[in-house]
Amino acid sequence: MSGGPLAGVKVVDLTTVVVGPICTRTLADYGAEVIKVEAPGGDLLRTMAQGSRNPGMSGKFINFNRNKQSIVLDIKQPDGLAALHRLIEKADVFVSNVRPEALTRAGLDHASLAKKNPRLIHCSILAFGRGGRYYNRPAYDPIVQSLSGVAGTLERATGEPRFVPMVMSDHTTGLIAAQCIGFALYRREKTGQGEAIDVPMLENMASFVSSEHLGAATFDPPIGPSGDGRLLSPDYRPLPTKDSYITVGPNTNQQAFAFFDAIGRPELKTDPRFDSAFARTNNAAAYFDVRKAGLAQKTTAEWLEIFDRLDVPAARYNTIDDLLTDPHLGDVGFFQPEDHPSEGRIRRSRRANKFSGGERPVETHAPTLGEHTNAILAGAGYTVAEIEKMRASGAVR
Amino acid sequence: MSGGPLAGVKVVDLTTVVVGPICTRTLADYGAEVIKVEAPGGDLLRTMAQGSRNPGMSGKFINFNRNKQSIVLDIKQPDGLAALHRLIEKADVFVSNVRPEALTRAGLDHASLAKKNPRLIHCSILAFGRGGRYYNRPAYDPIVQSLSGVAGTLERATGEPRFVPMVMSDHTTGLIAAQCIGFALYRREKTGQGEAIDVPMLENMASFVSSEHLGAATFDPPIGPSGDGRLLSPDYRPLPTKDSYITVGPNTNQQAFAFFDAIGRPELKTDPRFDSAFARTNNAAAYFDVRKAGLAQKTTAEWLEIFDRLDVPAARYNTIDDLLTDPHLGDVGFFQPEDHPSEGRIRRSRRANKFSGGERPVETHAPTLGEHTNAILAGAGYTVAEIEKMRASGAVR
Repeated sequence: MSGGPLAGVKVVDLTTVVVGPICTRTLADYGAEVIKVEAPGGDLLRTMAQGSRNPGMSGKFINFNRNKQSIVLDIKQPDGLAALHRLIEKADVFVSNVRPEALTRAGLDHASLAKKNPRLIHCSILAFGRGGRYYNRPAYDPIVQSLSGVAGTLERATGEPRFVPMVMSDHTTGLIAAQCIGFALYRREKTGQGEAIDVPMLENMASFVSSEHLGAATFDPPIGPSGDGRLLSPDYRPLPTKDSYITVGPNTNQQAFAFFDAIGRPELKTDPRFDSAFARTNNAAAYFDVRKAGLAQKTTAEWLEIFDRLDVPAARYNTIDDLLTDPHLGDVGFFQPEDHPSEGRIRRSRRANKFSGGERPVETHAPTLGEHTNAILAGAGYTVAEIEKMRASGAVR
Repeated sequence: MSGGPLAGVKVVDLTTVVVGPICTRTLADYGAEVIKVEAPGGDLLRTMAQGSRNPGMSGKFINFNRNKQSIVLDIKQPDGLAALHRLIEKADVFVSNVRPEALTRAGLDHASLAKKNPRLIHCSILAFGRGGRYYNRPAYDPIVQSLSGVAGTLERATGEPRFVPMVMSDHTTGLIAAQCIGFALYRREKTGQGEAIDVPMLENMASFVSSEHLGAATFDPPIGPSGDGRLLSPDYRPLPTKDSYITVGPNTNQQAFAFFDAIGRPELKTDPRFDSAFARTNNAAAYFDVRKAGLAQKTTAEWLEIFDRLDVPAARYNTIDDLLTDPHLGDVGFFQPEDHPSEGRIRRSRRANKFSGGERPVETHAPTLGEHTNAILAGAGYTVAEIEKMRASGAVR
């Protein structure tokens, strides 16, 4: 097992855009062999995202699809669908973000596939869970952010509903799908049996938001307003300094008292609004006002030097572009140069997590559309003549 | 294996606040037996969050700590530390969010623990990964949001850096830690060996942000500005209707053309700015203007009825409080009444994901501080007399 923890796991990936691809990228990063099955037009993310050197190879697609192989199958044609079935027969995991009824029509539901492959782990990423009235509705990430309360947290903070400007519901749910697949792989080692997993976006994001923000409404009847007031404060943000921004986290007494000294307000250490973590939580707005007034007095560099000395948690503010030059990320080699065979020099981000038991030894590039069609079909036992016939009919590309 | 996928897995949990507790809650929800080890003062989340009926049992603590058992050990005392070591000797997983040097001083690093328990999976949740210059700095969630570009995404959208008003870095990294533990449990079934896992918050969140928003700066040199312009648009938000808000996602041609008809602008179907998904992505700002003007004409209920009929993805906007009455979440029983033995009637959220291979059969309440100290020590082989002696010395509570 000198590969990653998932070395030897074969995944057939019938997903598009972000929610599925981040799931399978995670599996691939940690050692699984992922076959990305694409329709003839390719994953929408190849073209829908801005920024590409060549058509169909957007930066965003590249980031979410490293370490995978691509095969193009037209599963609306019998030969294309048959090829997909043949791949799944030899797979450990099948992941899709296709509506379950469409899967069933193609014989791709768990019950049908388990007849030939009882060890298969069948993961369905859904917008909305079975049994609820939104189940059959189409959805994208902002629909789920709107329904799950994610946009609601920003209304509480700023007065206006707004999405987190990332596909947070897709991204988070995809990471959770990879988590669930890991749990099922573990169980399969014990039981010898695969299983079906449903991973619905709305339920996962409602869990995310409500765990953090039900607060006093966790109790029935509520004993106060919902929401964690500190996080929902308008001033819960990087705060302005003389020249830029800074983020501070003086949470414990030791940190807070050092902070009060640093901003020249030692008397606040015995102020009943600020003399304990509990008091500061209950006076979050006043505590933010103290921070704002104090932090405006010096530059970010001056403050960082002072807070580093005092062991007060503090950090500069990085824009998206600043990530590329952050010194810590530089130290750990977070971005690595990669020479992509068709796209040239790109920046590749590293796996974030380290496993002492061994890591995937070779990283591979994000595939062009259908780059591995022939190799994958040959590996599944198709002859050269069979592959050529399927290419001629358009069942594969 | 009629329990959850992690039935039989024993976890010793030396974590606090959110990043660790959401990791171990996930493990517990899916079947693991989690022993939460608390210092005499208890997890800060018990008191730091607002909203509780009784001291030390905040709503937020309850939400992140269901299905766990609590033991209080003073690991600064030799007998307390010895008890922790004894628990870990019989565990499958040890999770901490303690700085590694402090772990090593207490003999709780992987190398030391593996001598007695080579099957142990040792997961260290870190603020910053080893090898980088921030490694030893203290950090909380906003520090990581500030450094990882999360706050930077909101600056691009609104002109002002702001945190996502959730502990998003903690919460996401904790979910990823549970994912990594699942992968290591799977590998252990193959190799018989445990391992050490490092899960750093900054690296995980930098991966989250950069995967989505490097965009054209994925290429080196960049071929355009970083960022996914559609997500970073000021109008990427629930949009106002005549009486409230609505979120729409007319992304495919079919959806967009039906939307143009619905708002009385059929001529846009052949407008070169809007006649393909690619064109609409490249004219995102203009497309948002079209949506805003159109959607203001009717009420949310009127639009939802129309878009449902046309199969255009659309949804109402839910505040945090609206989650409690959302009809889909009601259908799936997302919030369940629970009679907590000490806190009375509360709302308990359901596990979001379903495993056909069997689920945890019994759910247990979030524990009061040290609720299971005696039972856990007895299970570890301590006699009643030994436990009483440790209570007298304050090594356990």
